[in-house]
Amino acid sequence: MTSAAPPFGKVLVANRGEIALRVVRTCQEMGIRTVVVYSTADSESAAVRAADEAVRIGPGPARRSYLYPPAIIEAARRTGVQAVHPGYGFLSEDPDFAEICARNGLVFVGARPEVMAQLGDKALARRLMADAGLPVLPGTLQPVSTPAEVFATARRIGYPLIIKAVAGGGGRGMSVVRRQDELMSELRSAQAAARAVFSDERVYLEQFWDNAKHIEVQVLADEHATVVSLGERDCSVQRRHQKLVEETPAPGLPHGLAARLADAAIAGAAAVGYTGAGTVEFVVRGEEFAFIEMNSRIQVEHPVTEAVTGVDLVREQFKVAAGLPLSFTQDDIRSQGVALECRINAEDPARDFAPCPGEVTEFVPPGGPFVRVDTHAYAGWRVPPDYDSLLAKVIVWAPDREQALARMTRALAEFRISGRGVRTTRALLQSVLADPVFRAGTHTTQSRPWDLPKESTC
Amino acid sequence: MTSAAPPFGKVLVANRGEIALRVVRTCQEMGIRTVVVYSTADSESAAVRAADEAVRIGPGPARRSYLYPPAIIEAARRTGVQAVHPGYGFLSEDPDFAEICARNGLVFVGARPEVMAQLGDKALARRLMADAGLPVLPGTLQPVSTPAEVFATARRIGYPLIIKAVAGGGGRGMSVVRRQDELMSELRSAQAAARAVFSDERVYLEQFWDNAKHIEVQVLADEHATVVSLGERDCSVQRRHQKLVEETPAPGLPHGLAARLADAAIAGAAAVGYTGAGTVEFVVRGEEFAFIEMNSRIQVEHPVTEAVTGVDLVREQFKVAAGLPLSFTQDDIRSQGVALECRINAEDPARDFAPCPGEVTEFVPPGGPFVRVDTHAYAGWRVPPDYDSLLAKVIVWAPDREQALARMTRALAEFRISGRGVRTTRALLQSVLADPVFRAGTHTTQSRPWDLPKESTC
Repeated sequence: MTSAAPPFGKVLVANRGEIALRVVRTCQEMGIRTVVVYSTADSESAAVRAADEAVRIGPGPARRSYLYPPAIIEAARRTGVQAVHPGYGFLSEDPDFAEICARNGLVFVGARPEVMAQLGDKALARRLMADAGLPVLPGTLQPVSTPAEVFATARRIGYPLIIKAVAGGGGRGMSVVRRQDELMSELRSAQAAARAVFSDERVYLEQFWDNAKHIEVQVLADEHATVVSLGERDCSVQRRHQKLVEETPAPGLPHGLAARLADAAIAGAAAVGYTGAGTVEFVVRGEEFAFIEMNSRIQVEHPVTEAVTGVDLVREQFKVAAGLPLSFTQDDIRSQGVALECRINAEDPARDFAPCPGEVTEFVPPGGPFVRVDTHAYAGWRVPPDYDSLLAKVIVWAPDREQALARMTRALAEFRISGRGVRTTRALLQSVLADPVFRAGTHTTQSRPWDLPKESTC
Repeated sequence: MTSAAPPFGKVLVANRGEIALRVVRTCQEMGIRTVVVYSTADSESAAVRAADEAVRIGPGPARRSYLYPPAIIEAARRTGVQAVHPGYGFLSEDPDFAEICARNGLVFVGARPEVMAQLGDKALARRLMADAGLPVLPGTLQPVSTPAEVFATARRIGYPLIIKAVAGGGGRGMSVVRRQDELMSELRSAQAAARAVFSDERVYLEQFWDNAKHIEVQVLADEHATVVSLGERDCSVQRRHQKLVEETPAPGLPHGLAARLADAAIAGAAAVGYTGAGTVEFVVRGEEFAFIEMNSRIQVEHPVTEAVTGVDLVREQFKVAAGLPLSFTQDDIRSQGVALECRINAEDPARDFAPCPGEVTEFVPPGGPFVRVDTHAYAGWRVPPDYDSLLAKVIVWAPDREQALARMTRALAEFRISGRGVRTTRALLQSVLADPVFRAGTHTTQSRPWDLPKESTC
């Protein structure tokens, strides 16, 4: 048996937390040496320990470390890497960073900068996908700014509608408007929020579907014109537009709809000349669906797709980035069974999911057949206050949905996690798994299939 | 979605270590309450912590706890369980214990006592399988005892030959003889060992195949005449007739041989009226194969079969024990990819694999996609000197063998394990994964595909 030569000799991981460790593991399996960059707050993280080399690039606040390209490029230059994997969040969808990498002779493991820029402009992405024949929600195909435009659009598409930041995405910078008399105040606050968070106050309007599901399709595309779908994920269990539980296949879809979503996702990715791992997000109501956005990066919830397909998505990202063809064609993909992911966040459901940084004192993740836990935490880990609150992802696979629910219920019960000041979403997730609507698979993004704890200990 | 009623309300696990935790996990997923019995030496074990109830049944030495039926039956009576899962080893293949369970109104999760008794007599099992049409090695179909019988048999079957204990199995009580002048002394020492270990000095003779593979087939059979094969496992990497690395599918078999082994295993299991999970073991040389023994219990290495088939074998054991049909037919079984298991034992390869009990001070098992670690150990666990030395099983799955080897290499490197006085097989296993013969898949039970460490620290 001869081993294939690794696509890169050495790679820098420009991220932190569980995804940095996730990327390091695949590198190790591919024979790629790894450099992990880290902030002062992460110097004891599991990813830093696992990497061949680790380079401190700045203090805790992300804008001075994980969001600061000069420090990352300097670390890349010093360590002699050939490529940069950005993970998710931070600079993963920043076309400027991808271009800086290219100018410095580094391969950016992700979509091409011009494609990323198009998809990052959420209004432009709507236009491109509409041109490619995908259904989009009634709304504006250009940013809107004047009250006259906004009122005219609202009259045309009706209520409820949603105001979204052009530079937003991933559930951030959104505001649902249900009555005309709320329109102007919501517009102003949406613009102010967009300016504050994204430094870009442009917004656009879409019809809002009540009681709809959030369904997304994982695609992979290489530079040799192959675009494949790895199936859909239901991400309808959300709090504050952020996903809590993800599942594949999506339960309760009408017959044939998943295949139509996959076809649409492939058509959309092909139309924009997409390369790498990407996710096409849809809103689904009954037999209807509409494109909402495309994310040009690996997603937090990618492991459920790995569990049913057997594909290592990060491995394929590296192959595509090196100009190699994907390891498979569409016909090779045979999804089996059901996979679920639950996000254990260090946050307090009783205080509107406020982050709960602190020291983890006990941390024993569950195990056993078909249980995977992706985490950078361990007993003694101090959750820094600087970043998002994700502590661990529990992923289970089973031959059918009933067994998958039973397995996840067992895994969450087995997870021993406690800490000083640290409160988590574990109990909330347990209540989701017991919820009749969730178990029936009929939940939507507006369902609240959980019991909120009465008291906060955060 | 309606959940199936659990096959039992409450079950007692009559075992320890990783397999006790393994069984508890499946019970929890099936809605079965659990009682774990334990010796004083195991009072802090992970299985004891995970169970709904735990009952101490005696001191450390197994003959006064895990091998002592009255204490187990008393615990079962006191806790009101309906069934007993024996795990592997200890009382798992003891027909007397199965009968005691039945007399006390308890379902023994395993084969019927009379079938277990037949298969436990390794010479009788050879006769039954030969009658069923399975190839058996030239040798004796009855126990031999007199020197005249032994010399006559040896002349007929030639050298090398192997002397085995009738009551042996699982690699214990075996002695290879290469020359006639060793025959009598080996016979006497084999009989003495059989008497000491099994309280039964009867032995039998078989031809011994040099440079053969040890291949076994996992079968499942229910009380409704369904017998299915879940494929084969290569367990040829052994030290002192004990398995170290297991793999499925078996690499390097001639085309069509795996299917012939599976057919033979199904025929053998059907012929003896087998029920439950069982393993039919073969020796394989080129195109030839021969039956050696059948184990009427779950095996240590069962997770590799679970990884490629998606089947929870313990779940099926419970279903069969409750008289339910298996969850699938042969046609439903679609094996995918390659799975490997490595056994991390607390023992010292530099001192002929002598056990190394002591306190585990650091214990961080590997994780990531398609890595499973079955273990009862944790940082702070004190490995008792009373039992076998298995600390953890690392199981990986991948789409092909090359990726599975890379994944296991990564997982073993990631495993952080150390302790006071504790030395493990981890480094030895790493050298197996790097060995050219092992990587080529041409290794046999006589290969020594490892580097022995030069120094002992045990």
